[in-house]
Amino acid sequence: MFRKLIESVPNISEGRDREKIERIAAEVRAAGAILLDVDPDPDHNRTVISLVGPPERVEEALLRLTAKAVELIDLQEHKGEHPRMGAVDVIPLVPIKNTTMADCVELSRRLGAEIAERFKIPVYLYEESATKPERRDLAYIRKGEFEGFFEKIKQPGWEPDFGPREVHPTAGVVAVGARPPLIAYNVNLGTSDLEIAKRIAKAVRGSSGGLRYVKALGFALEERGIVQVSMNLTNYEKTPIFRVFELIKREAARYGVPVLGSEIVGLVPQRALNMVADFYLQLENFSEDQILENRIAQALEEQG
Amino acid sequence: MFRKLIESVPNISEGRDREKIERIAAEVRAAGAILLDVDPDPDHNRTVISLVGPPERVEEALLRLTAKAVELIDLQEHKGEHPRMGAVDVIPLVPIKNTTMADCVELSRRLGAEIAERFKIPVYLYEESATKPERRDLAYIRKGEFEGFFEKIKQPGWEPDFGPREVHPTAGVVAVGARPPLIAYNVNLGTSDLEIAKRIAKAVRGSSGGLRYVKALGFALEERGIVQVSMNLTNYEKTPIFRVFELIKREAARYGVPVLGSEIVGLVPQRALNMVADFYLQLENFSEDQILENRIAQALEEQG
Repeated sequence: MFRKLIESVPNISEGRDREKIERIAAEVRAAGAILLDVDPDPDHNRTVISLVGPPERVEEALLRLTAKAVELIDLQEHKGEHPRMGAVDVIPLVPIKNTTMADCVELSRRLGAEIAERFKIPVYLYEESATKPERRDLAYIRKGEFEGFFEKIKQPGWEPDFGPREVHPTAGVVAVGARPPLIAYNVNLGTSDLEIAKRIAKAVRGSSGGLRYVKALGFALEERGIVQVSMNLTNYEKTPIFRVFELIKREAARYGVPVLGSEIVGLVPQRALNMVADFYLQLENFSEDQILENRIAQALEEQG
Repeated sequence: MFRKLIESVPNISEGRDREKIERIAAEVRAAGAILLDVDPDPDHNRTVISLVGPPERVEEALLRLTAKAVELIDLQEHKGEHPRMGAVDVIPLVPIKNTTMADCVELSRRLGAEIAERFKIPVYLYEESATKPERRDLAYIRKGEFEGFFEKIKQPGWEPDFGPREVHPTAGVVAVGARPPLIAYNVNLGTSDLEIAKRIAKAVRGSSGGLRYVKALGFALEERGIVQVSMNLTNYEKTPIFRVFELIKREAARYGVPVLGSEIVGLVPQRALNMVADFYLQLENFSEDQILENRIAQALEEQG
């Protein structure tokens, strides 16, 4: 139906008022984009909205969603556990189908310029769209949160990529950026020893010398009496799921601990699973064009 | 776009005359079904046509294709290596999306009755549509081929499921039946000893005591100086790819032979690969609804 698809997962700083959340999310469909999911978190007082569509509709949807969020959310009155700096806190753009990371970077710039212009909100480009290396990291940009930003924005090196060097009084600032799809992936270990999960998490995560695109923590699953390595895989093409899984199996064996299973939380791109099948079957010359459903989709497009 | 999809892979007894083949295949698109592939084999003098669409369009496409094949093909003059008994030799029906095996069995009956009525061709139901256990096997039905059928059809037990008890003088007889998707799958072994490939093929194939839905033969790949276990997997849900692969790896180890890789020839259903990923990652509670592309397709349908 749509030849080109980009996904966006805007996070808004409202996770309690159902009516406000619905009015903001409704803008996505009004713009002709596809609303995939609306996931409010009352503790964080934050909602993660997932949408997808062709670039121009995603752009329109995000502009309308931002307009409504600026109208309905006042950060002066916002409290929640999750760090935040804007009414629309962050807008990630993810290439999904017949679109590239470069397309998403381009869209992030267009969108950032437009948000700054229309709403007088300072915009910071992050991840693949970042204009300075340190701005790739969202946590770095967000440090100090909304309240701290009024002072921070005046410091050297904190000029926004677009918009005024002045925090919007109720909507704060926003980060916009292109990034690969993120996979939430956990591996469950047959032990109750939390220390082992923590050690393995440290071994596999990029920040401490492990696999580049893995963020990992060790957790206890109290009810099951076991522990878990809980991860975000931030680039499944470069650090594929199977390599993470195999490395954890090897590390667990070092402690004589079995891997009970693993789990994918939320959504996963089909290609990430196809890479797993390709690896374990040791496939020679396999192409995703050989997948029946892909062939049908291609034929549908060709035949009109 | 289409909510329900059935695939069909009719085999016609013409693999050399390009113009005739094209005229026959053109009927698929004329009926509004999707033509996936046309694969003529001059040695076999036979063409495999792959098409897909909603049940009613597949039915229409197959009736139009049969009409054109009956018009253009004369089996009295047909020669080729592959056994055959009809101008349209066999019509398999495969459930693909939001359709069941029962839907395909029902379609095979409707289609069989219609072909018998319109073209005066005897129709035999096979595989899942078979009305007698021995007729599940296409090779059993086809024994003696076109030439032998004139005598055979008069024998006890050979009444067709639909149509006259008389072979059509130029179009022969046709088999129509529902079956699961078929996967052509090969495993390559790091040895030149053909005997080992043959022994492993015998170990894994259903007919000699191995896995129920595996047909397997051992072959030499002369150019690479290695051997191959070449297979058809006739029901990937009940005999999944990963189990076949693991069993072959184990059998090969018994001879001290490494598995170099495996290959999927032609098309494979996405679900067959997802089952592989699920198995090797030991996934807990995974659902195909978690696949981003599936979620998008669902949202598109819901949103219209």
